[in-house]
Amino acid sequence: MALAKHGATPAGGVDRQALSPQEVAAWREVIAWGRAAGLSPFTDAAGNLFLRRDGRDGKAAPVLTGSHLDSQPSGGKFDGVYGVLAGLEALEAIRECRVEHRRPIEVVAWMNEEGSRFVPGMMGSAAFTGAAPLDHFLDIRDAQGISVRDALAALHEAFPDVPSRPLKRDVVAYVEAHIEQGPILEREGYSVGVVTGIQGKRTFRVTVRGEEAHAGTTNRRERKDALLAAVRMIGALDDAMQSGGDAVKFTVGRLDVTPNAPSVVAGSVVFSVDLRHVDSTMLASLGNEVPAICAQRASPCEVDVVELTTAMSLEFPDTMRDLIRQSASALRIPTLDILSSAGHDARFLHAICPTGMVFVPCKDGISHNPLESAKREELAAGARVLVDTLVALANR
Amino acid sequence: MALAKHGATPAGGVDRQALSPQEVAAWREVIAWGRAAGLSPFTDAAGNLFLRRDGRDGKAAPVLTGSHLDSQPSGGKFDGVYGVLAGLEALEAIRECRVEHRRPIEVVAWMNEEGSRFVPGMMGSAAFTGAAPLDHFLDIRDAQGISVRDALAALHEAFPDVPSRPLKRDVVAYVEAHIEQGPILEREGYSVGVVTGIQGKRTFRVTVRGEEAHAGTTNRRERKDALLAAVRMIGALDDAMQSGGDAVKFTVGRLDVTPNAPSVVAGSVVFSVDLRHVDSTMLASLGNEVPAICAQRASPCEVDVVELTTAMSLEFPDTMRDLIRQSASALRIPTLDILSSAGHDARFLHAICPTGMVFVPCKDGISHNPLESAKREELAAGARVLVDTLVALANR
Repeated sequence: MALAKHGATPAGGVDRQALSPQEVAAWREVIAWGRAAGLSPFTDAAGNLFLRRDGRDGKAAPVLTGSHLDSQPSGGKFDGVYGVLAGLEALEAIRECRVEHRRPIEVVAWMNEEGSRFVPGMMGSAAFTGAAPLDHFLDIRDAQGISVRDALAALHEAFPDVPSRPLKRDVVAYVEAHIEQGPILEREGYSVGVVTGIQGKRTFRVTVRGEEAHAGTTNRRERKDALLAAVRMIGALDDAMQSGGDAVKFTVGRLDVTPNAPSVVAGSVVFSVDLRHVDSTMLASLGNEVPAICAQRASPCEVDVVELTTAMSLEFPDTMRDLIRQSASALRIPTLDILSSAGHDARFLHAICPTGMVFVPCKDGISHNPLESAKREELAAGARVLVDTLVALANR
Repeated sequence: MALAKHGATPAGGVDRQALSPQEVAAWREVIAWGRAAGLSPFTDAAGNLFLRRDGRDGKAAPVLTGSHLDSQPSGGKFDGVYGVLAGLEALEAIRECRVEHRRPIEVVAWMNEEGSRFVPGMMGSAAFTGAAPLDHFLDIRDAQGISVRDALAALHEAFPDVPSRPLKRDVVAYVEAHIEQGPILEREGYSVGVVTGIQGKRTFRVTVRGEEAHAGTTNRRERKDALLAAVRMIGALDDAMQSGGDAVKFTVGRLDVTPNAPSVVAGSVVFSVDLRHVDSTMLASLGNEVPAICAQRASPCEVDVVELTTAMSLEFPDTMRDLIRQSASALRIPTLDILSSAGHDARFLHAICPTGMVFVPCKDGISHNPLESAKREELAAGARVLVDTLVALANR
């Protein structure tokens, strides 16, 4: 609730986009809590925030836990924040109970998980793990024309006393706690889900170029109306994606018209396509249709389709899933195996170290919405499973 | 070219929206030119700018000429500005040649003709003529949340030495010079068009309400995707409007998605519909279909359709058209009768006094576009016809 004040919206949600003044304020608060708990804050060139608790072996690679502090423009109080605060709570508990551990444990808040201000998302974890070089992101700009490069410089300037460490450090394991963002745990009556893997996702940016014209003087056959062409494309994409059944998730969430004036025929339209499916084969075949469907509907405009992210479905290793299940079992907390329909930074960490995720229920499965809510005792259950899992990993 | 510096865009066009700092700068320049030509500037509560030259009879109602200084976000150098500057040029010529006239002549720059920053357009002339009360517009806000009320207050504050006069003053006649914004005069080889009337126009604001949801976790049948519903509506509207043939002008120029993030199912979409047809009967029947077509495609979302402007096609009186034709004829400038496909402030003036319009060609008929262009000698021809028309009206 304290963090939700940073970027609070009138609707009761949170607008705390990546590297914004609101996120800087959230960093400041989390760093203060971390210092009060004896943790050392540091950052890296990608604007990730780490809070470290040393173990007995100063040279051992750390166990990582965390998530992100940025939100969607109309996000809620729990998405991302829960993983960071559950990690912080875990380290506070370890300190208060004087639990011994060999390896360091670090809580991380990854930069720009959401990808709403700067597209694509999960930039911080991509750069940290080497899934993409940081250079790849630096010239990307937000709607106001501010680059990731400049936003990162401003972030680091705001925290002169937070030192920087290199990207691509060795990590021994990663565990991310998160709200489910779906209705299953609540419906089935479980407080904790052991995440089996992450649903695949392909995203595209479609740019339609027409010609600006006066709405009152230009006849239909002389027009190159980029908005009408975009509408035809999106309608056809939606028709095609229905062949994938109810499990296909096809979303055009962002659409920007230029010049976006009621009496000017649209000169250009840029829209996003977000396509997800549990089955990687279906995801591949449906995604492959996107460029052709857009091209067929473009005339008399021109269209350019760029695939921004291609992430096939993945499974977390059994060793990590077993460890989380055992931690819960020892605490007498029943768990349900569950697939993550949403993407998480855990995707990129999975490529460099054993990775797992702990889910807790959220009210009515609602997320990316001001109504996002979760129960205190279920958030606590997730954190209890997390802390035992972290200690086990840090003593391996 | 001097005015085009205020709001100049990299593309070579002009972004000088109503009541913006750019328009304030344009006001400042036009007022300075007017004062240098011995004219008295004043304004009114609706933010219209007048430059007055007195005639012999100080109490006679004035002849008005002018147009507007605001532009579309990606507008050109001539739309609107030409009418104001042709009027200013006319008054300078009258002064230099010491032409006698009985009635005062005023050049006017109407507030917010374009309606791109604040919807709808032609607010200034609507309030001046009483077509709509000024109160009706004051709480309308731009995309940044600034109200017309506050923007007007800022304008008037910027010009403490420009006095205010009442709205709804008596006007004896109105003549507006404008670029054609279509290809006819250029194609037919005429420098001056005598405008016969204005094509009708109906505009709507369509608000689609769905439900924000996470793009990765919400199945198709659980979604209320406002963008997909809007796409279906626009596609169906376009299909229906095709029955009106090539002469129907159907434009969705503005579409705003909330929250407009790639991985969030759209919670709401607001789009504009601009519908024009020379034939008022066609315009009436096509426009009447808009609400039902939207309602049929709304499910599972909700839709609300508001008609913002209903302006049937109109004809200017023969007396005014004859006078303009005679002025041109005396100058040996051939004229073509031509219908205005675009709307103009002259529409509202037509309701309160004899009104006419003078068109000049623009290059390739292009308007509302940085490429908007017109020839010096044709602009001058229009101003010559205008000045003789104004003097004749002011001596009646």
